[in-house]
Amino acid sequence: MKILIINGPNLDLLGEREPGVYGADTYESVCAYIREKAEGIGIECGFFQSNSEGAIIDAIHEARKTYDGIVINAGAYTHYSYAIRDAISAVKIPAVEVHISNVHTREEFRHRSVISAVCRGVIAGFGKDSYVLALYALGGIR
Amino acid sequence: MKILIINGPNLDLLGEREPGVYGADTYESVCAYIREKAEGIGIECGFFQSNSEGAIIDAIHEARKTYDGIVINAGAYTHYSYAIRDAISAVKIPAVEVHISNVHTREEFRHRSVISAVCRGVIAGFGKDSYVLALYALGGIR
Amino acid sequence: MKILIINGPNLDLLGEREPGVYGADTYESVCAYIREKAEGIGIECGFFQSNSEGAIIDAIHEARKTYDGIVINAGAYTHYSYAIRDAISAVKIPAVEVHISNVHTREEFRHRSVISAVCRGVIAGFGKDSYVLALYALGGIR
Amino acid sequence: MKILIINGPNLDLLGEREPGVYGADTYESVCAYIREKAEGIGIECGFFQSNSEGAIIDAIHEARKTYDGIVINAGAYTHYSYAIRDAISAVKIPAVEVHISNVHTREEFRHRSVISAVCRGVIAGFGKDSYVLALYALGGIR
Amino acid sequence: MKILIINGPNLDLLGEREPGVYGADTYESVCAYIREKAEGIGIECGFFQSNSEGAIIDAIHEARKTYDGIVINAGAYTHYSYAIRDAISAVKIPAVEVHISNVHTREEFRHRSVISAVCRGVIAGFGKDSYVLALYALGGIR
Amino acid sequence: MKILIINGPNLDLLGEREPGVYGADTYESVCAYIREKAEGIGIECGFFQSNSEGAIIDAIHEARKTYDGIVINAGAYTHYSYAIRDAISAVKIPAVEVHISNVHTREEFRHRSVISAVCRGVIAGFGKDSYVLALYALGGIR
Amino acid sequence: MKILIINGPNLDLLGEREPGVYGADTYESVCAYIREKAEGIGIECGFFQSNSEGAIIDAIHEARKTYDGIVINAGAYTHYSYAIRDAISAVKIPAVEVHISNVHTREEFRHRSVISAVCRGVIAGFGKDSYVLALYALGGIR
Amino acid sequence: MKILIINGPNLDLLGEREPGVYGADTYESVCAYIREKAEGIGIECGFFQSNSEGAIIDAIHEARKTYDGIVINAGAYTHYSYAIRDAISAVKIPAVEVHISNVHTREEFRHRSVISAVCRGVIAGFGKDSYVLALYALGGIR
Amino acid sequence: MKILIINGPNLDLLGEREPGVYGADTYESVCAYIREKAEGIGIECGFFQSNSEGAIIDAIHEARKTYDGIVINAGAYTHYSYAIRDAISAVKIPAVEVHISNVHTREEFRHRSVISAVCRGVIAGFGKDSYVLALYALGGIR
Amino acid sequence: MKILIINGPNLDLLGEREPGVYGADTYESVCAYIREKAEGIGIECGFFQSNSEGAIIDAIHEARKTYDGIVINAGAYTHYSYAIRDAISAVKIPAVEVHISNVHTREEFRHRSVISAVCRGVIAGFGKDSYVLALYALGGIR
Amino acid sequence: MKILIINGPNLDLLGEREPGVYGADTYESVCAYIREKAEGIGIECGFFQSNSEGAIIDAIHEARKTYDGIVINAGAYTHYSYAIRDAISAVKIPAVEVHISNVHTREEFRHRSVISAVCRGVIAGFGKDSYVLALYALGGIR
Amino acid sequence: MKILIINGPNLDLLGEREPGVYGADTYESVCAYIREKAEGIGIECGFFQSNSEGAIIDAIHEARKTYDGIVINAGAYTHYSYAIRDAISAVKIPAVEVHISNVHTREEFRHRSVISAVCRGVIAGFGKDSYVLALYALGGIR
Repeated sequence: MKILIINGPNLDLLGEREPGVYGADTYESVCAYIREKAEGIGIECGFFQSNSEGAIIDAIHEARKTYDGIVINAGAYTHYSYAIRDAISAVKIPAVEVHISNVHTREEFRHRSVISAVCRGVIAGFGKDSYVLALYALGGIR
Repeated sequence: MKILIINGPNLDLLGEREPGVYGADTYESVCAYIREKAEGIGIECGFFQSNSEGAIIDAIHEARKTYDGIVINAGAYTHYSYAIRDAISAVKIPAVEVHISNVHTREEFRHRSVISAVCRGVIAGFGKDSYVLALYALGGIR
Repeated sequence: MKILIINGPNLDLLGEREPGVYGADTYESVCAYIREKAEGIGIECGFFQSNSEGAIIDAIHEARKTYDGIVINAGAYTHYSYAIRDAISAVKIPAVEVHISNVHTREEFRHRSVISAVCRGVIAGFGKDSYVLALYALGGIR
Repeated sequence: MKILIINGPNLDLLGEREPGVYGADTYESVCAYIREKAEGIGIECGFFQSNSEGAIIDAIHEARKTYDGIVINAGAYTHYSYAIRDAISAVKIPAVEVHISNVHTREEFRHRSVISAVCRGVIAGFGKDSYVLALYALGGIR
Repeated sequence: MKILIINGPNLDLLGEREPGVYGADTYESVCAYIREKAEGIGIECGFFQSNSEGAIIDAIHEARKTYDGIVINAGAYTHYSYAIRDAISAVKIPAVEVHISNVHTREEFRHRSVISAVCRGVIAGFGKDSYVLALYALGGIR
Repeated sequence: MKILIINGPNLDLLGEREPGVYGADTYESVCAYIREKAEGIGIECGFFQSNSEGAIIDAIHEARKTYDGIVINAGAYTHYSYAIRDAISAVKIPAVEVHISNVHTREEFRHRSVISAVCRGVIAGFGKDSYVLALYALGGIR
Repeated sequence: MKILIINGPNLDLLGEREPGVYGADTYESVCAYIREKAEGIGIECGFFQSNSEGAIIDAIHEARKTYDGIVINAGAYTHYSYAIRDAISAVKIPAVEVHISNVHTREEFRHRSVISAVCRGVIAGFGKDSYVLALYALGGIR
Repeated sequence: MKILIINGPNLDLLGEREPGVYGADTYESVCAYIREKAEGIGIECGFFQSNSEGAIIDAIHEARKTYDGIVINAGAYTHYSYAIRDAISAVKIPAVEVHISNVHTREEFRHRSVISAVCRGVIAGFGKDSYVLALYALGGIR
Repeated sequence: MKILIINGPNLDLLGEREPGVYGADTYESVCAYIREKAEGIGIECGFFQSNSEGAIIDAIHEARKTYDGIVINAGAYTHYSYAIRDAISAVKIPAVEVHISNVHTREEFRHRSVISAVCRGVIAGFGKDSYVLALYALGGIR
Repeated sequence: MKILIINGPNLDLLGEREPGVYGADTYESVCAYIREKAEGIGIECGFFQSNSEGAIIDAIHEARKTYDGIVINAGAYTHYSYAIRDAISAVKIPAVEVHISNVHTREEFRHRSVISAVCRGVIAGFGKDSYVLALYALGGIR
Repeated sequence: MKILIINGPNLDLLGEREPGVYGADTYESVCAYIREKAEGIGIECGFFQSNSEGAIIDAIHEARKTYDGIVINAGAYTHYSYAIRDAISAVKIPAVEVHISNVHTREEFRHRSVISAVCRGVIAGFGKDSYVLALYALGGIR
Repeated sequence: MKILIINGPNLDLLGEREPGVYGADTYESVCAYIREKAEGIGIECGFFQSNSEGAIIDAIHEARKTYDGIVINAGAYTHYSYAIRDAISAVKIPAVEVHISNVHTREEFRHRSVISAVCRGVIAGFGKDSYVLALYALGGIR
């Protein structure tokens, strides 16, 4: 099973950006953590990060050829990118929406996701473990 | 580690109620499944189900004495019970909000949760595995 | 044919509560009136009244085993109890929503019903005859 | 007792228009059915159908001279015709609002009625029996 | 100077309809009163009343050929007839919107007029004198 | 008959302020015009202008002792001064709300008046004649 | 192929009404233009214009018997006539919504159409060619 | 004079729950404080606490037989329980709504009370003294 | 302890203005009543009334030098004066918001207070005793 | 005449993405179809597709130098890209907004276009012919 | 060049009021700072502060005779005083709206200004330098 | 001191795009003007312009390494790019939001900025001087 982990805008600054909210791990160390946990349950992960909405859509399109599923933290695009929503629903592989923080404890605009309705499910609030739980969810619980 | 699994209104009818949305497993078989998975990761589960808002609040209050955390599927109360919200924030043990279905693909009124903001995180859309993932989330990923 | 007549919060005070709106008949005399009219058209009625949302849900669940239909005046729960809505749609017997008064001539919040969409139909404004008309509607017109 | 049954726009196409929603009976056969049931309870019915808002208002005005009550299915005018509302409240005979389908299970705009507040009551969702129940309601239950 | 006085739906029932709001004068006596006052200031009046939106639009179109201005009490159409609004703005003669009652003391929906913005001005609340004041307004104060 | 003409904020700049909207007459010449017309119909006018909400309320309170009615152009206070609204409804003499321009053709915020509901009526859009029409309205048409 | 071109309220005044928005062609010359273009692509056109909502509904009902499709410019009824919407969805022949002007550059209330959702498609902004494009759309591009 | 003090959901956790907001006194010590102050002004108090909406309604119904008034802190039910609202307005003894904290300085949803309109008055923000002030208010100031 | 009692617009007309709502006592007699009750609990009162928003702000500013607290009935300014709100939060002495009537039983616009959030608490609905209760609240219950 | 056909996000997946909505033709075959039809009416087409908002803006800017007009299907950007709107209004060549499906029959968010107001017109609902009709509209009907 | 610096309600308490938001400088020292900076760029400043909306309007009216421009910090009036807005647009000299704090980081109600649309520009967030930047803006950058 | 001047979508067309709103200067000449003025106050400027949201985010991320502050005119992204908002708040150097035109005098959607709350301040309406004033604001007034 191959899963693509997509991270959206500003997640390249993990560790540096608001550590009180997002934790002190860098993007690279979070990726390493996810990869290690994924291997433990027999999932091969790819990683993609971009600050560009168009590049994320391109990545979703590409993923449909070589991946079995997508785990996506669309960052702020979560709240208004109907284009990413359309990309997810256009490809047939399942996607899981994840968030590092519990978005419902933050600003009002973060309470609304325009992509939840085209994802299989949503996982939010568990730090870097949100990604790992999404892998469990896609791979099934054994 | 001891976790209380709280199920709210109409979840006693699991298996019988809209199987297309909620699956064919009964409430009892879902509980058995969760217990089995929980034991696999060293978590002891208690189970509580009620159709009554007040009884759920009582259960949350009680839980603070003997449990380390709560996994709660508040059913339709999710969308308007500020009293359950207050109960969760009044007790100091962490709670995880779960939903069997992806509520965001259903009626508009199911998109809003009044309890998310006082839970540690939210997991929705993975059938009975939503509960298991919540246990993983509370127990930590190993 | 067996029909359960469910009355929600504050309807136990019929006759005493705002007689200008609800009439001078007591809850007991209204039940007697409905029973008499029901017998006239060959319908056996059960009666249930509770001020508790959870107890009403329990009653709806129970009804699916021994009744052919439900006539429900959910009182103020009509306007916000998504949990009762879910209960009605979870059981397979038909339900008819009734109101004693014409709710549309009263406060704004009484104009919205969250249960109409899962009932077969709605009858409002005809005093205690609203219940009888609902029995006619369920039994068919002969 | 003489009651005028008013049907508004597009109800002349009954039987042909969306039979899944409105049933297969034609306007004429529905009228015949209502007349027969009405005679059974000693009510004489008149029938009026028009696609024109103004003609419906004229008919309501006329009705006040020769009828004891009105049963009105205002079709789509239900949702915005404050002019029909004013006509109903201007005449002193009682009116009952009826709908063939349960409007609350359909598009959002059909959930709002601007005429309910000036009618004695509302009956919706029972097919052609909605009209008959309205006659019962006006004639009283015996 | 020739002015057409247009009255919309239900104003034919003046005197009979809610006399507490609209006064006890009939439509005919109100017209006679207006004609008499108009003659006193040298204005010739025509009168048109219809319950039909389309007929009112036709009358506005016709008026542009033989009248110097319009005084319109559009009744309930005031609140939603964008078609009458378009008719008023399509003809080049000035129009004055009038209301017998002070619409702002009544139901919420009567507070909004969709035709005010295409009229020269608005006069509301002075009973049958609202029409006379509109004639003064169109004829100029001398 | 004695009527107080109250003008609110910025009406002291009449003639200088946006002449395209308000005309070229100064505040003084408008007052002179109104006085002359008033005398013609046997009404004695007082005039009061202030940019201060509190001073306008004081003037309304005073007016109840020596005037038979009020004509008020509350300027921008029209749109939010519930305090002036309360002042008008506290005194027992009738008030007429006037506007020089047709406020409904201007910015959205000018479409809402918080004082209309406590005035006898509203006259808007007829330039300085709006005041004179209000005097006619209070004095009655003869 | 026979297509009925329906024009709603105030379109009889084309050429005279706001020529800056609607152009200088009269209703008759626009019809002649459309007929000529229609003949060029082998489509026979009928024409109907009315200011009355009811008459337009009648025409739509009639059209289902002798026409293969409808091109409708419902004028201001576009924005609130749920009755015309129901008429279009009640008949089985396809309809195309057209507008002469680009309604989205005009007043806010013109941005919403209640009939778009029951038409095959929408064409707006191309003057009298909007009608011709609709004929192309119904006839197919060759 | 006998007054029933009703406390709603989560108030049983007073002293333990968010002491920064609600103070360090337990439910029992707050009751003792109120009773002592009540005795000082000659009022006999009863106390009732429940997390269940239905039980609170039952208590209000019961109170009408043996108490002269109600002081109610409905907790989170304040914000959505139209059923409790109906219960208060159904019984004829006066009720005073109280809150320990100043709800207007907290989350948006706490700013709206659905029961204020059926209570004699509201007192909020004075800690446990809110209850005592309510007793003064019911007993009259001496 | 010295407390300033501030009364806003139209409260100078107490006794004369809507006695059904505000009671028959004049402003002077209400002040005398408050002063007497205040002396009974050892509080010295100052009184200030103005119809001017600016004067009320000036009074609040002044009060910070010589008073220990403020009791304010801001009248209609309650509903929109963010300037008074800022004044209250700018001075460090505590303020209590009071209303004579239960504002929640009156017009919609009276349900919103923009100053509650900067006051220590709110007391509404107890007639002139609202002021006295506020003094008790500030002085503490003894 | 040279026209640039711009397609926005996810339209590269035409034929694969939701064929029930968008048809079975691929992006390439749709382009070929449009080019062929365009040549038939003497229009030379360029084609541009991108999933990136910025790239689409760049393309619009470039188009102003070598094209006579733009046909744009902005995909999901239609609903929120004020930046694309600004780009269209910044260049002087005309643009036509097109949609393959009738967006008004789909999700609520697809009913609003932020670019319509800066386009010459809108064409929606005719499959790949929507593009061809736009070319006709720009080239004029002959 | 002569500029009038107008400060609205509560700005007389600068230095004392919420120093965390507004800084520790008093109103007098801020004025002195502005005057000194103004002299450095050849601008003569007048200063006006009032807590009264009416007095601020009077000052704006006066300013048009002797000043070349206005810098206005309208305090809380910024958010609702359409009367000040009208005053600014009534005088012909340019005005610049300033705020000491970044109002967009504070309460929701402070995000809306009703005067921005009639000012030349807006400067917010730079402490006392907001005023100086406004002088630069009016004087032009040299 | 080094400041990066970021310009968003369509600002590359300055001088060509709506010169009535944005002035006749080209992007290049505006940059030259800003650079010259910046040098006069000892600030070194970098310049970045892109039509791509992602590229702007990348530039903000880069800026945190070599610049002391950011001046950003985000063009239309101002109104919906929560991703740019997150980028600004993720980097620790201060940012000032600028606009060439007074956005509050333009379309409704331009009145809302989603980035103001994470900038130090906002400057709008002063043409190319808005940028220079922002440099003054960041550099401090000397």
